[in-house]
Amino acid sequence: MSAIRHALTIKRADDFAQWYQAVVSQADMAEESGVRGCMVIKPWGYGIWERIQQLMDRRIKAAGVENCYFPLFIPLSYFSKEAEHVDGFAKEMAVVTHHRLISDGKGGLVPDPEAKLEEPLVVRPTSETVIGAAMARWVQSWRDLPLLTNQWANVVRWEMRTRMFLRTTEFLWQEGHTAHATRDDAMVETLRALEMYRGFAEDVLAMPVIAGEKPENERFPGAEATYSIEAMMQDGKALQAGTSHYLGTSFAEAAGIRYQDQEGGQQLCHTTSWGVSTRLIGGVIMTHGDDDGLRVPPAIAPWQIVILPMLRDDDGDGALLAYCEELRDKLADLIALREPVRVLLDRKPGKAANKRWDWVRKGVPIVLEIGGRDRENGTVSMLRRDQLWAENGKPNFQNHSCDGFSSQAPSLLEAIQTGMLAEAKERRDVNITRGIASLDALAEFFTDANQFPGWVEVQWSKPTGAALDQVVEQLKALKLTIRNVPMNAMPADGSCLFTGAPAVERIFVARSY
Amino acid sequence: MSAIRHALTIKRADDFAQWYQAVVSQADMAEESGVRGCMVIKPWGYGIWERIQQLMDRRIKAAGVENCYFPLFIPLSYFSKEAEHVDGFAKEMAVVTHHRLISDGKGGLVPDPEAKLEEPLVVRPTSETVIGAAMARWVQSWRDLPLLTNQWANVVRWEMRTRMFLRTTEFLWQEGHTAHATRDDAMVETLRALEMYRGFAEDVLAMPVIAGEKPENERFPGAEATYSIEAMMQDGKALQAGTSHYLGTSFAEAAGIRYQDQEGGQQLCHTTSWGVSTRLIGGVIMTHGDDDGLRVPPAIAPWQIVILPMLRDDDGDGALLAYCEELRDKLADLIALREPVRVLLDRKPGKAANKRWDWVRKGVPIVLEIGGRDRENGTVSMLRRDQLWAENGKPNFQNHSCDGFSSQAPSLLEAIQTGMLAEAKERRDVNITRGIASLDALAEFFTDANQFPGWVEVQWSKPTGAALDQVVEQLKALKLTIRNVPMNAMPADGSCLFTGAPAVERIFVARSY
Repeated sequence: MSAIRHALTIKRADDFAQWYQAVVSQADMAEESGVRGCMVIKPWGYGIWERIQQLMDRRIKAAGVENCYFPLFIPLSYFSKEAEHVDGFAKEMAVVTHHRLISDGKGGLVPDPEAKLEEPLVVRPTSETVIGAAMARWVQSWRDLPLLTNQWANVVRWEMRTRMFLRTTEFLWQEGHTAHATRDDAMVETLRALEMYRGFAEDVLAMPVIAGEKPENERFPGAEATYSIEAMMQDGKALQAGTSHYLGTSFAEAAGIRYQDQEGGQQLCHTTSWGVSTRLIGGVIMTHGDDDGLRVPPAIAPWQIVILPMLRDDDGDGALLAYCEELRDKLADLIALREPVRVLLDRKPGKAANKRWDWVRKGVPIVLEIGGRDRENGTVSMLRRDQLWAENGKPNFQNHSCDGFSSQAPSLLEAIQTGMLAEAKERRDVNITRGIASLDALAEFFTDANQFPGWVEVQWSKPTGAALDQVVEQLKALKLTIRNVPMNAMPADGSCLFTGAPAVERIFVARSY
Repeated sequence: MSAIRHALTIKRADDFAQWYQAVVSQADMAEESGVRGCMVIKPWGYGIWERIQQLMDRRIKAAGVENCYFPLFIPLSYFSKEAEHVDGFAKEMAVVTHHRLISDGKGGLVPDPEAKLEEPLVVRPTSETVIGAAMARWVQSWRDLPLLTNQWANVVRWEMRTRMFLRTTEFLWQEGHTAHATRDDAMVETLRALEMYRGFAEDVLAMPVIAGEKPENERFPGAEATYSIEAMMQDGKALQAGTSHYLGTSFAEAAGIRYQDQEGGQQLCHTTSWGVSTRLIGGVIMTHGDDDGLRVPPAIAPWQIVILPMLRDDDGDGALLAYCEELRDKLADLIALREPVRVLLDRKPGKAANKRWDWVRKGVPIVLEIGGRDRENGTVSMLRRDQLWAENGKPNFQNHSCDGFSSQAPSLLEAIQTGMLAEAKERRDVNITRGIASLDALAEFFTDANQFPGWVEVQWSKPTGAALDQVVEQLKALKLTIRNVPMNAMPADGSCLFTGAPAVERIFVARSY
């Protein structure tokens, strides 16, 4: 029996989708923009993205990859080239056809028929084609390889059903694009990016992931191999949180990316691409959020510690603020998770208790409430977001001496970061089921009664072509998809769940976003 | 008589426009993309933008402004609203009309007529309208004010004539948008942003600027006052390098941004907007570039020091590289201009002398060439980009002990930064002419024979309306524009150059980009 009055009115267990929207809204992360499928990312949501960007960019640069910026618009003809060699070519894209507006004579505006573009321009859904054209100019000789580029940009895909952060018409991402002399070099880069994403997800987002290869049917159109990191959300569904593709030589052929080798011959480059997006923020919400809102891992929290002075609009406020400022300055000088501690003294008007709940919903790792009595005693009253409730159902405030808290703050933040990963990993691991060996057993497991079934690891014979299509259809009937073939999994030792033939590897099967 | 063989084949004095293109290209900053009016920003150009972004963002955040992200697409109807109250409404914009491509049956693709948008979407040329709509949702009461937001984004303006960095169809910028309770508060913010830009241009870009108010005819459409920073390029032309607008209440009225005041009444907000863009990079090139290429101020140099080991493909290379690595690590631990020194050990294949000239053209502040002899003697051979040539017309290498160089490196970088600003300021100041008091004298001054005439400070009576239009036409005939009314100028003490009436203030008149 719990007397806890949670900060959200919707609970994860009752309606996970509604709960997700409530967190996005009540943590003040983003909102609908009035423009179809596009969101406004508000300061708290954007601040988390800035942290992700900064820390990911550091890893990208450390790998010797250089940032560039390529055009938003891609001429239609570039896609015709791609459409020829790509079967599953996605055609839902925003198309620019005019470059001027004129008055319609009725107080409105219309595209000027006189200003129709000779060749329509597509708003980039991804930049393979336009970066490929640049690489064809930049690569001449083996000395120019590897060519390692990355871009931080907005991209647009015309989605029919959108959900904030998870699937929006416009989203923000990074896209790495590299060219190499050999298949081996390109494959090393493909897996380096995958491992970078895996490490980032776990170390920075505290979000455990399974890295592995996607099955043939889930490959990026035109790719020879697609790898992903897959994270388990609290409803047991899988979120594809990042991908890395080995593209072989087909994109190089379409764009003409060739190099002269050391013997003077002309060779096609082997290319890769890899990306993560604002979707990661959706993953953070569904990994760490709880019935009180978001919980942000300290490594990506725009503010890690918020100080709330309990002002009373009286003479004591000046001394109280001075006490809080001194503490803030002291904390800001500390290093946690290898960066200066990010601490805010929140002086906005409003009651401290209301502001406390705002910060709880936003998921700031540590809130300090400080009143006149604290100042007199040299203490602080601390609330950890990851240990929000005491056994009596009340907020779990802990009193510390001011100095004691300061000296512990870095290790506290690091402990919260580590604890969040451990908690998510444990939940993920207990929600992976093994040993299901028939399609019937699989269907039985994924009944509607099993609200949060998690993932199932099954063995299969890795069918291809029509045989794979049949497997995909069988899974689709159960609303399931193959997530990936995990790296470093145990070798297969049974028979294929779908065909009964000897199994060759293990795969994860799950419902997904 | 100079025996110097410069690193560029085109000299500033011979053809400034061609020289500019040569720097952009030979410093490997950007190139044409194949997409009309859009450029590819290459790693060295983008690295400079990343530095600008990072240092400007710090100043923006320090002022309490929060970053958000708003949609790329703006519904056409938003502009209809604006078109009503804005006379000079700019209509050259990219318009999205379709959301799908289909095959044309001849191997190409066309916009799908079935996927025509009910309401066309405009690719943002600036975000006043869509941010105004958000502010109308976010502002309820005086407690919500001031509302201080900023966005880093790409924007698109369909330009007929483009020049890399200076005027491109797509460009990168930041746009600050704020809402305030009173005119005074909004004006303080407008001028704070202006002063932030002035300080940034001088301290970070080493680019001296004149901050002042634009004349009525140069105001942002719908603004009540527009301020700019103006920089003098080496050809004497003015570059508007940043603007800050006080928008009065008209944008708030169009978007419905109202607040309840402390007495319970409904009030319109006063809004501002302010921005700088990748155009700043064009300003850096034309302020600091010379006949050997770009010179990058240390504060924004992606690499401040480049170490070139003179490898000989023999047994000595290992020891030489170890010596260089040790030096690199030592330098990277130093702090200059309040940040860790950015130092690159360039191991790319190629001759050290060729690589030296590549880095000279890119404008890296300090190049160190290190050979086997240096390693034996514990020395380095240093080339300062701002003191490139010795009196004998040869590269001005200076020998230092390795330890001596390390201990001086921070103060050297700071001296280069300071020296570049002083040099640019001196050139700017000697190229400002005062005392021209008649239109004839002005015409005589700006003859074609005067190749780099610089700016002229004149006095005027601040005509408005039709009288101002006449002044603008008179200046236009001389290819001149009014740049701005400098803040803190001497009071007027003469008569108006245009009307002969008593002058009320001083203005700058110049040719411009």
